[in-house]
Amino acid sequence: MEKLKRQGQLDPDARGVGAFGEAALIERISGILPSTSPPEIILGVGDDCAVVKIDRERALVATGDILVEDVHFRFEHISAYELGRRAAAVNLSDIAAMGARPTVALVSCAMPDDFPVDRFDDIIRGIRDQLADNEAHVVGGNLARTPDGLTLDIFMLGEVRLKRMLTRSGAAAGDRILVTGHLGDSKGGLMILEKYKRSYPDRFEKLVRAHLQPAPRIEAGRLIAASGFATAMIDISDSLAIDLLHVCRASDVGAEIELERIPVGDELAEAAVFLGAESREMALYGGEDYQLLFTVKPDTPRAILADISRGSDTRITEIGTIIASGDGCRLVDTDGGRRPLEPDGWDHF
Amino acid sequence: MEKLKRQGQLDPDARGVGAFGEAALIERISGILPSTSPPEIILGVGDDCAVVKIDRERALVATGDILVEDVHFRFEHISAYELGRRAAAVNLSDIAAMGARPTVALVSCAMPDDFPVDRFDDIIRGIRDQLADNEAHVVGGNLARTPDGLTLDIFMLGEVRLKRMLTRSGAAAGDRILVTGHLGDSKGGLMILEKYKRSYPDRFEKLVRAHLQPAPRIEAGRLIAASGFATAMIDISDSLAIDLLHVCRASDVGAEIELERIPVGDELAEAAVFLGAESREMALYGGEDYQLLFTVKPDTPRAILADISRGSDTRITEIGTIIASGDGCRLVDTDGGRRPLEPDGWDHF
Repeated sequence: MEKLKRQGQLDPDARGVGAFGEAALIERISGILPSTSPPEIILGVGDDCAVVKIDRERALVATGDILVEDVHFRFEHISAYELGRRAAAVNLSDIAAMGARPTVALVSCAMPDDFPVDRFDDIIRGIRDQLADNEAHVVGGNLARTPDGLTLDIFMLGEVRLKRMLTRSGAAAGDRILVTGHLGDSKGGLMILEKYKRSYPDRFEKLVRAHLQPAPRIEAGRLIAASGFATAMIDISDSLAIDLLHVCRASDVGAEIELERIPVGDELAEAAVFLGAESREMALYGGEDYQLLFTVKPDTPRAILADISRGSDTRITEIGTIIASGDGCRLVDTDGGRRPLEPDGWDHF
Repeated sequence: MEKLKRQGQLDPDARGVGAFGEAALIERISGILPSTSPPEIILGVGDDCAVVKIDRERALVATGDILVEDVHFRFEHISAYELGRRAAAVNLSDIAAMGARPTVALVSCAMPDDFPVDRFDDIIRGIRDQLADNEAHVVGGNLARTPDGLTLDIFMLGEVRLKRMLTRSGAAAGDRILVTGHLGDSKGGLMILEKYKRSYPDRFEKLVRAHLQPAPRIEAGRLIAASGFATAMIDISDSLAIDLLHVCRASDVGAEIELERIPVGDELAEAAVFLGAESREMALYGGEDYQLLFTVKPDTPRAILADISRGSDTRITEIGTIIASGDGCRLVDTDGGRRPLEPDGWDHF
């Protein structure tokens, strides 16, 4: 019966998962899982991290990210050590997006027989160092073989004060929209790597590093959450556009951001000219920046934002405003014209 | 430099990971990770679960298990639904081995584009049902593409009372060695599947189910831990022989078990004759039984063990005794002769 179904062209269930996006598959999962869960599960499938209550004041946050060779990375672009750091960083970034403190990680590593053991060691060293930078620790994991190619899957846990936790929902009309750091650097770095492999000109080093070794914004995330003025937060992994749309959907609001205010660094501006690309488009749709996008109440004092910036040594830029849900999500162009924000970016699935 | 090293035949670091066993790679990891960790990390790499203190009374336990298509399973042997159940079960079994209560799971699923979406749904259903049987919940996860073949990685959390927790260490000379259930059924089921695929004779159904849908011994694990008489515990995943050796190494003791006392069910005895195999060897070295192996103090009352058995509806069999470390680990043969216990079984790496 199963086989018959699969041969039929008309049955939609016979389609491969490639015909679906990540969002559609997550919706299928949500439809299959029980619709109710016990009260200690504060957040399940659908935010940066799952959140499970520990006691009256604290919750555990948990996230995972699986990286597949030749899908998510190539060893001609990234060293094993950098891969280890990067795999840890993208998980830490999800922890940062909740305003949480990372604690421990489990590492699953599936490798072919001929995977060089020195590369394996370097991956572990990279994970170790990235976690050490953020006072987190590897406590376990799992090794397996693959017929071909490396799969690296890191699960990361953290802890958060329930009163301080931020999620994608919580933004309200009138709230201001801000981001940490420069955006688009990672996309610029990727394009440079694709053009030059590892022999790129020195002046693009910062962009390449932004791509290969993103710095999770743990301290900024904690200060933003602790400020008491933030209303929602997400890390920019898919793209500024997609992740802002995630916040709008979860918060049931719209947003208006100004293209001109999106923070683009000098290096990216230079690289964009060189690559014949638009730096602000790269910043808007590039993804994998692992900066934080957050919203704050309209009356948030300038001094509060300055304190967060100084305390975390991170640039903070206001790029727009949350508006009513019915007004949609839109972009104010450099000429003042408005266009809908398109959900373009990096679909990690 | 790195490239030069890799071309050299004499550099041991140029070897592929396939030249190492799982234990050797875990030792490399331990050598790379920091030698000290904060006091809240009670157990790191090396037991069934990592253990992290939550407060004075409770700890979080965490484990993960990655399954790779054509390495750990084949869809000609197992349905997608069964695979989901099984992947959840092997993680739950690690939680059981600590005497812990499972809570939440994260699921990473990496699939090729043409992976049928109905299979994907069935995997999620299987995971859901296995977790529901044990009052645990999927709270998140991660989807990714692979060039080829499915990789399913489940990360499972649980909670344990620190006073009740059992680990691999803790066994002392004189302690009695016990196991839950029948052993070898899973190996028998696998051999039947390899011989017949899914068209096996009905009388081997129980063995095939033991292989495809092992039942994690959560309730038995909790009762064993709560009894106050148990000293060490592990789940039998590699094999009775290997997992007993794990306990001996972690506890710094030896062990003597009697081949004749290893519990073998009638179905396995029949299948063994049929397959031309030795049922007790299958029970000793087969692995993947996901029963519990535990040790109890010498003076443990018979009534305590009977209560655990009744309370968890699980057979419990005493198979030997913990002895001094210097006496090694040995097997008393049916003819009364002693031989060293060989570390044969299923290397999951």
